[in-house]
This record gives sequence, structure tokens and C-alpha cells, in this order.
Amino acid sequence: MARERQLPPLPRLSRRSLIGGAAAAAGAVTLTGTAAPAAFAATRDVDVAIVGGGLAGLTAARDLVAGGKTVAVLEARDRVGGRVLNLPLAGGGVTEGGGEFIGPTQDRIKALADSLGVDTFATYNTGKNLLYKDGKKTAYATDGILGSVPPIDAAGLANAAIVQASLDDMAKTIPLDAPWTAPKAEEWDRQTFETWLRANAVIPSAKFLLDVACTSIFSAEPRELSLLFVLFYIAAAGNESTPGTLERLTETAGGAQELRFVGGSQLVPIKLAATLGDRVVLNAPVRTIARSGAKYVVTADGVTVTAKRVVVAVPPPLAARITYDPLLPAARDQLTQRLPMASVGKAIAIYDTPFWRADGLNGQVVSDTGVISSTFDNSPPDASYGALMGFIEADEARKFDAASEAEVKAAVLKDYVTYFGSKAASPTSFVLQRWNNEAYTRGGPVSIGGPGVLTQYGPALRTPVGGIHWAGTETAIHWNGFMDGAVRSGERVAKEVLAVL
Amino acid sequence: MARERQLPPLPRLSRRSLIGGAAAAAGAVTLTGTAAPAAFAATRDVDVAIVGGGLAGLTAARDLVAGGKTVAVLEARDRVGGRVLNLPLAGGGVTEGGGEFIGPTQDRIKALADSLGVDTFATYNTGKNLLYKDGKKTAYATDGILGSVPPIDAAGLANAAIVQASLDDMAKTIPLDAPWTAPKAEEWDRQTFETWLRANAVIPSAKFLLDVACTSIFSAEPRELSLLFVLFYIAAAGNESTPGTLERLTETAGGAQELRFVGGSQLVPIKLAATLGDRVVLNAPVRTIARSGAKYVVTADGVTVTAKRVVVAVPPPLAARITYDPLLPAARDQLTQRLPMASVGKAIAIYDTPFWRADGLNGQVVSDTGVISSTFDNSPPDASYGALMGFIEADEARKFDAASEAEVKAAVLKDYVTYFGSKAASPTSFVLQRWNNEAYTRGGPVSIGGPGVLTQYGPALRTPVGGIHWAGTETAIHWNGFMDGAVRSGERVAKEVLAVL
Repeated sequence: MARERQLPPLPRLSRRSLIGGAAAAAGAVTLTGTAAPAAFAATRDVDVAIVGGGLAGLTAARDLVAGGKTVAVLEARDRVGGRVLNLPLAGGGVTEGGGEFIGPTQDRIKALADSLGVDTFATYNTGKNLLYKDGKKTAYATDGILGSVPPIDAAGLANAAIVQASLDDMAKTIPLDAPWTAPKAEEWDRQTFETWLRANAVIPSAKFLLDVACTSIFSAEPRELSLLFVLFYIAAAGNESTPGTLERLTETAGGAQELRFVGGSQLVPIKLAATLGDRVVLNAPVRTIARSGAKYVVTADGVTVTAKRVVVAVPPPLAARITYDPLLPAARDQLTQRLPMASVGKAIAIYDTPFWRADGLNGQVVSDTGVISSTFDNSPPDASYGALMGFIEADEARKFDAASEAEVKAAVLKDYVTYFGSKAASPTSFVLQRWNNEAYTRGGPVSIGGPGVLTQYGPALRTPVGGIHWAGTETAIHWNGFMDGAVRSGERVAKEVLAVL
Repeated sequence: MARERQLPPLPRLSRRSLIGGAAAAAGAVTLTGTAAPAAFAATRDVDVAIVGGGLAGLTAARDLVAGGKTVAVLEARDRVGGRVLNLPLAGGGVTEGGGEFIGPTQDRIKALADSLGVDTFATYNTGKNLLYKDGKKTAYATDGILGSVPPIDAAGLANAAIVQASLDDMAKTIPLDAPWTAPKAEEWDRQTFETWLRANAVIPSAKFLLDVACTSIFSAEPRELSLLFVLFYIAAAGNESTPGTLERLTETAGGAQELRFVGGSQLVPIKLAATLGDRVVLNAPVRTIARSGAKYVVTADGVTVTAKRVVVAVPPPLAARITYDPLLPAARDQLTQRLPMASVGKAIAIYDTPFWRADGLNGQVVSDTGVISSTFDNSPPDASYGALMGFIEADEARKFDAASEAEVKAAVLKDYVTYFGSKAASPTSFVLQRWNNEAYTRGGPVSIGGPGVLTQYGPALRTPVGGIHWAGTETAIHWNGFMDGAVRSGERVAKEVLAVL
């Protein structure tokens, strides 16, 4: 596979070039950013206004257009993709600052990528994993009877296996479209995941494994999460025919980290947006959604859209920052006060080669210390350069929120040297993406539910309010929190709107 | 005491009459709403812009003006007072839809009221309390050895006493200005109050008492709260020389419900606003706070203020809805995603007389059922009419969020009849205040902290961001969540600003 394959130009849509049908017809609209600015149309009238140009909003737009409706997608940023983001590398090429992996049962993101001609390749997974624990480094094979379970003590392994089976069993009782109706919903929603883990993962090494799994999955500590929310999230890690499991969330091969996109995951929303042309308006943060007779007036910076229906496809805490007239029902408003974004960053160090591979390592680490406790080999499929990607999660993300990039880089490289040796000290470039500091995300990867949220506010997640419909991966019942969930939510909300429009 | 004493005209400030110095000098500014509209000044330049005209913002304004600074208070509503609200009664007079009680150690709200000539009177507390439990009604005296503790079984009483003592003892270890540094902060912040109660209030009747105390204090269920947050709140229920206790939070005589204000609690902010004259701008919801060189530009609907410093004196989840430029630090932003408003309403039924007094009852109920599980005799000091006030809290508030006023009224009066007999069925008027449905509160009485919030985000509560300072009762270290805390936060933030301006 040629390196060029994964180094497409990184198109930047602009409001000036993407708004105005006349300009589009005249060929002024482009996704490569090379055309002259077109005339700026400050108002539009469409069937459906869509707030947010991430995978959810763009998918909804695609399906609504296919259903014969006119749409306008209002995106706050100067790019599409939301939490899916290609970052250019100094030496050419891209790496991914946001969602990047897909895996089995993530059928809808896969189908979307297929339809757009975006190929996948296997996440590098050859060689041994590393466990760094109690100051000791242990390489371990992942193809044995234990899969990728780190080599902790036997009692811990047994305990962790029981805990994992218990979580999967409990998750099986969760109705995906209404987790608050699970037989034990009340019991599970009144305690933190931490409380439950302390009662069940009683061997310290087992607790360690579950803690790492938790921060890796949610970028949140177990104390921040309701047990019910965790069980719902596990249950959602599957499709219509395959129930979710904890293992599918955490695994590389056979799990949610199995595949990557050639050219970077953002190619999917970029290509999807291209099919929508000037229906996508960038640099247009939505400030108000106001009903006016039978229509809604959606006001963004610099552009106003009137529409029969509105789809809000941004995370709940950001949806809360829009002014609604009339007011939203209390249940919906208070829900958005109670689904905060978790805390996450990604640090990608680029090297001339993926040198750890020669040491028999697959680049995947599980650690009990450091700013980075979980890594992946993020090199391109042809390994024309090496990339070590590490997640900065939960407490660690918060610890470094206010640090300079140089400080974060130093801390990350210290960890990489600990895990992979002195060669890791000198990357050719270093890319840092801190979602907590992004205006139109303010955390990540997704919203998390603490105790009492799902049981009291769950129904408000998807219930439309008048002509306002809700999308976004946080509303998905399969692969909630993932790119796949975003796509599914866009498909679901489009059906919902088409059924009434 | 003459009835007129508590029936002052209810002034409504208006932006038109309160903005514009020339108009003020010409005598057009008034708090009685009788003057002709004055010219509207759309821009102002002051030393300090204050967002929010509740007790916190107005107190800050008073102290800053006393310190020689110019201020503008931007209030979103068409009235001052925030969560302190007098409601006019059909038959004349007012009742209170928001904060109304004060008690011992609430020195700052008392001093403020004294300075404004607003008197207090004792909350009606003569006669017996009612316990309604398991379908059975029991009247009990509150002057015995157990104080106002309801007559549950002996084992439950003993258990509840131990739990209460434990909570007070744990609260004593909380540093008020930094609860996240308490020796056991991590342990207490990783579990819900519900989890702790289940482990400690093991006798069902004791658990019932603690549950009622919890919903009465926080308008939140124990599952919504971090144990650490609850302990901080208890610790804060005192002043500089008197440590907080659970009892001071829950008691009428000797506690936070001991006194009321003659004329209604909103008289305090109304009179305070009057001393500020046209510095208070109503109908001015703030949308953006942007730095511009050495100044800030605060943009509200219809009015823009430039200022050297900004005080944000609104609850955290509403502060999150303002657009900040530059962005707030992640810690501050994510804090505001994690301190939701609790859920509360107040239902006040007015009767010709406080008929329950003749039955030897003080109007205070503790119940294990119904939309109303806690009531007070809210009659005026001269008892010229009777008023039964009930709190609609937490799950019950949410249950009725979308109900019509008629439905809520029917449910409330059913409870009042259960507690006080058939006379309660026919009030002369009925007033309902549902804070969850208010645009500029969206819940109440205050923000609540779930697990993990204080330990990870606590320092962001009061740490200024550049020239932006934070006030509001949620920032107080004494009587956090109360009117007294609001006043204290205003005094603290004014000192903070004066020290640097």
C-alpha cells in the first residue's frame, strides 16, 4: 500500500466556500480549500436544520437528503468530524486526534466507510503486549488461553474473570432502549462503579485490571460512573444480533480496537460532507433554537436557518449551551446538566520506524502509573514511519489540563521511554490533542452518567421535544460512545424525522 | 404587627427605567414601576460587571460601590433576587416561592437584612409535628429530649442518632475552604451518600429519617450525592466560630428554618437593589464574556458592558451557558458540567385561617409518601390568613415536572388533606413555584455534587480566571446553598476584586 494512500490532502471546508447555492453551481464550492471565496448567504430555509457536523449530523443529513428533504448542517468548527479528527504530521501524512478504531459488530460505521470508499486496515497487533506494574515491566503474549489479559497473579486473574463474567451477565439484563427499566436498575444506579468494584474485585491486581479497563473505555475513573451506566455501555457494545461484552470493548483483535481507517478516520466525515456539498455550513456555532409558528429559527454566528424540524447532534453538555425558545422541558434540560464529558487527550509520538516491533512488541501497554497508562502502535499500514499513540485519561488528563504542551510532551516521552526504551525519547515529531480544551467538545471522548442519571433522566435522551430531535453517539443504543453509535444515531434520527415530515 | 407591614408593594425593576445615568439623575429611575420609561443606554463602561442580580451579585455590587468602584449588575430576569422570590397572593400579600428561612449562625444575611430594615419573625413552631409513615399519622411533641426527631422505633432512633453523630464527626474533619484535602476525601468522594447510608443506617426507620433529611436539605436523593459533598455541606452549616451540624440544617427552632422575613425574603434583594439604583440592569441575560485588551466585554441581550473585572454570580450550570472568550480552563468548564441543579418546587395553599393550629399542630410534617413529604406553616406573623407550604423535592419534583399546575395542585391538596384533614381540601388560593421550569435557574435550590466532583474539580469553584471572579451560594464555605452563603460569597468576591483593582 503506497504511503500516498494514507496521505490525502486534508480538506478544510469554509463557510464562505460552502454556503450559497449559486456559488456552488458556479463551481466555487470545493473541499480542497483552493477556490475563491463565494458569496455569503446569511439565511436559509430548509426542511431540517441539523446542529453539528460530526458523524451523527452528517449521517442524518445524508439520509434526509436521500428521503427527499432539504437540509442545512450547522457546524461550529472550521471543519467537519467533531470528535473524529485527522492531524497533519510535520513530515507529511496524518495521525488521528480523536476516534480512530472500529471493530466487529460496528456495522454502520463500516458500511458508511465502505460506501465512501474509505478502506480499513488491521490495528498493529503482532508481538507481545507490555504490562508495567509496581515498577516492573513484563512482556506477554496475547494469543494464549487468556487472550490479552495481562499476567497478574493467579488469584487476581480468577477474580478478574469472575468480575468480567458478572458484568457481562448483568449487562445481559439491560434493555438497550430503556436501561432504566432493567430489573435491578435502581440498585445499580444508586452506586458508583467504584463501590461495586471494591465489593467484587477484591484482589488488588484484579481491581487494577478493572480500573485500567474503566479508564480506557470511558476516560473516566470508576468513581465517576454509575454501575448502571457502565452495564448499559457494556450491553451496547454489540449489534442487533450480538449482545455486548466487556471484552469486545477492551480487545484489539476481535474487539473495538481491531481496525483503523486508511487515510485516517476523519476521511469518513470529510468524504460524507463532500457528498452534501454546500448543505454543510462551517464556522457556524448555533446559539438559539426558537419556534416561530410552525417553523424553527436556528440562529448561528453569521447564519440563520428556518426549518420545519431541527436535529441536535452535539453532546448533551454542549446542547445545554444553546438557548431554546420555548424552554426545553425540565427533564431534558436537567439531563444535559448531568451528562458531563469525560476527560481525555491523545499523545502521538512519531519515529522514523516502529522500533518496538523489532523488540517483539506490538506497542500496546497497560500500566499502573504515568500520564499514559494505555498505548497503541498507530503507525500507518506500510510502517513507513512509527507512531506511538497514548491516551491521557480521566485523573491524568485533568492533572495536565493546564500544563503546557512541552510539559505534557516531557511527561509522555518519559512514560514511553519507561515502556519502550531510550529510542522513544527522540521522536521526529509529537502531536497532542487535548479534548478538554476544545471549545466545541470540552472533554471527551463522550458524555458519562453518574449515579441516578439514567433512572431519573434516561427517557429524555431521545424523546423529541416538539420538532426538535436528538442525535449524537450519546443517544445510541448500539455502540454508544463510539463512531458506530454516532452513525446509528444519525440513521435513527433521520428515520424519526422522515416519519413525521 | 400590622398586616400592611408584610404587604409592601412588589417593585419590579425594568431595564428601561434602570439604565441610563441621565434618566436616573432626572428622577426617572424608580423601583415602584410608576415612572415613565427612561432613555435606553445600550453600552456602559464600569470597573466591575456583575452577572446575576441575586443576593450574591447584589451584595458584591454593594461592597464594590462602597469600595469606590463603578459597577453594572446584569440580571437576566425582569426582577432581582434570583432564587429568592416573593409571590403575590390573590387576596393580597405575598408568599415565598424560593429561599425563605434563616437561622442561627447565618450572620451575614441577618446583617444585610438588618441594614436594610427588613425584620424577622419566628417560623411558626408551636404545637406538635406530624409523622406520616406506613399510612399512619402520629403527632409528636418537639420539645422533649429528642427534639424534633419523629417517634420511630427505638432501634431506629438509636441507629439514626449514631448515623447523625457519625456524619457530624466526619464533617468536623472537612477543611471548609478545601474539602478535597480532608484526610478521607478520596474515600468519601468515591461513593454515593446512598451507599454510605445503606451501610450505616441499617434499621429501615433510621434510613427513612435520613432519606427525608437528605431530600429536605438538598432536594436530591441520596444516590445523587457524593458522601464528601454531603459532609462538606454539613460542615458548612455554621459560621467562623461554630462548626456545622446536621441538626442545624434540619431544625426549625435553633436551626436553618428558625426565622422568616417580614414582608417576604425577596424584600432583602429588592431593597438592596434599590440602594444600587440604575446600576442594576434587568432583562439582560448575559451571553458572552470576552476579553478585549485589558478589559472584558460582557454582552447581554440589549446591553453591552465593558469592565476591568467580571463577577459571575449565577449557579455553575448556568455559568456554563455563557460563551467565554478566551475559553475557560478545562477544570472550570468541566466543573460546571458536573454541578447540576437539584430538583425542587414549592406549593403554598392559602386558607382563611391556619386551622391546623387549633388542632395543636405546628404545620410541620414528615412523610414517607406523597408529592409533599415536608411542610411548614407559612402563615404571616399575624396569622391573618393561613398558609401551608410544602416542598416538592427530587424524584417527586421530577415526576411532576411535566404535569399541569392543576395536576400538581390536586396531588398536593390530596397530601395536605391526608396530613391536616378535610379543611385542607379547599384553599382560598394556591401558589406553585417550580424552579426546574425556570429559564434562569433550571432546578433548585442549589447545585449538587456527585461522586468525584469535589476531589477533582473543587479548586475551580472559586479560583478566578484572569479577571473573571466567581460568586454565588455554591462558592460559599459557610452556609453553602443558603441565602447566607450567597451574601457571604458576594462579600468575599468583592474583597477579592477590591484587592486587585
